[in-house]
Amino acid sequence: MEVLKQRILKDGNIKPGNVLKVDSFLNHQMDIHLFNEIGKEFKKRFANNPITKILTIETSGIGIACIVAQYFDVPVVFAKKTQSINLDGDMYCTKVESFTHKRTYDVIIAKKFLTPEDHVLIIDDFLANGCALLGLIDLVQNAGSTIEGAGIVIEKGFQKGGNIIREMGIHLESLAIIESMTDDTLTFKE
Amino acid sequence: MEVLKQRILKDGNIKPGNVLKVDSFLNHQMDIHLFNEIGKEFKKRFANNPITKILTIETSGIGIACIVAQYFDVPVVFAKKTQSINLDGDMYCTKVESFTHKRTYDVIIAKKFLTPEDHVLIIDDFLANGCALLGLIDLVQNAGSTIEGAGIVIEKGFQKGGNIIREMGIHLESLAIIESMTDDTLTFKE
Repeated sequence: MEVLKQRILKDGNIKPGNVLKVDSFLNHQMDIHLFNEIGKEFKKRFANNPITKILTIETSGIGIACIVAQYFDVPVVFAKKTQSINLDGDMYCTKVESFTHKRTYDVIIAKKFLTPEDHVLIIDDFLANGCALLGLIDLVQNAGSTIEGAGIVIEKGFQKGGNIIREMGIHLESLAIIESMTDDTLTFKE
Repeated sequence: MEVLKQRILKDGNIKPGNVLKVDSFLNHQMDIHLFNEIGKEFKKRFANNPITKILTIETSGIGIACIVAQYFDVPVVFAKKTQSINLDGDMYCTKVESFTHKRTYDVIIAKKFLTPEDHVLIIDDFLANGCALLGLIDLVQNAGSTIEGAGIVIEKGFQKGGNIIREMGIHLESLAIIESMTDDTLTFKE
């Protein structure tokens, strides 16, 4: 997605440890115009899928998922990290390791919001080692819902997540795939 | 906002301890159609304010804020709970007590995303004791930005937050104000 790649080159910042900061438009400040372009693009790429629900994970996937959902005309459910006392006991639960925060989270979703009738599109901002996405896939499979695919804004193509997901036979669409990063350059996969 | 009040009566669940669960449409599963109606209503109520940015706090404010932002044609910034290693050091920080989670959070926002030129509309899903909203107001004041107002989806009118905010002279608009709740009834303020 050219407009996204240009925006990453213009406003993204590379930090030590292969960290790409896109906090000025994607995951701290959020450019809603860009999110709408992202929504249109995912709709194009999953045009033939009978999607009934969009699933994401807190925190930075939520805003993107909500704007994307407008193009599919379906509700969004976000999986929550750690147990909240405001949630019912009737939950699907999985564990997700976060390299960013150096810890493992319990990730939960109320059973009533994912059913065997649901056809789910998973949306998230980043795909790197794939832990978060594998956790979401696990939740969908536990619910007996159908996974129609996963839509990722930025995939770090030099990490293993994308390959793992594709080898599972899941329809994965990443709008910008980074092939390599150094301290001052960034190359996209064509 | 009548459609919201009817939805709360239809799909909200009252739990012990004055907890109102609206997780089927507001803060776990999210009804994007309803969010758009909420966006239109906030635009009507803040039609004369020169808003340049919408500010919310993770997690459940983010989806609402993104949809609402479309009606103001401005970006969203969400304040983050606890320090993330992916964030720059240059942050405004405040402390917010969460009664739901029985703990105090550091709430942070990158300084570059709130400036003295900004006119800020704060958006959140709930207002009860006001701690989260007071924290966001503190961040905006630290930045020297102008607070144009606060838009809340559901205010618990029997808790003190609304009065505190209104007495500060802040333009507060709550789309549904709950006057009283018992285990099986819920009354809105007219």
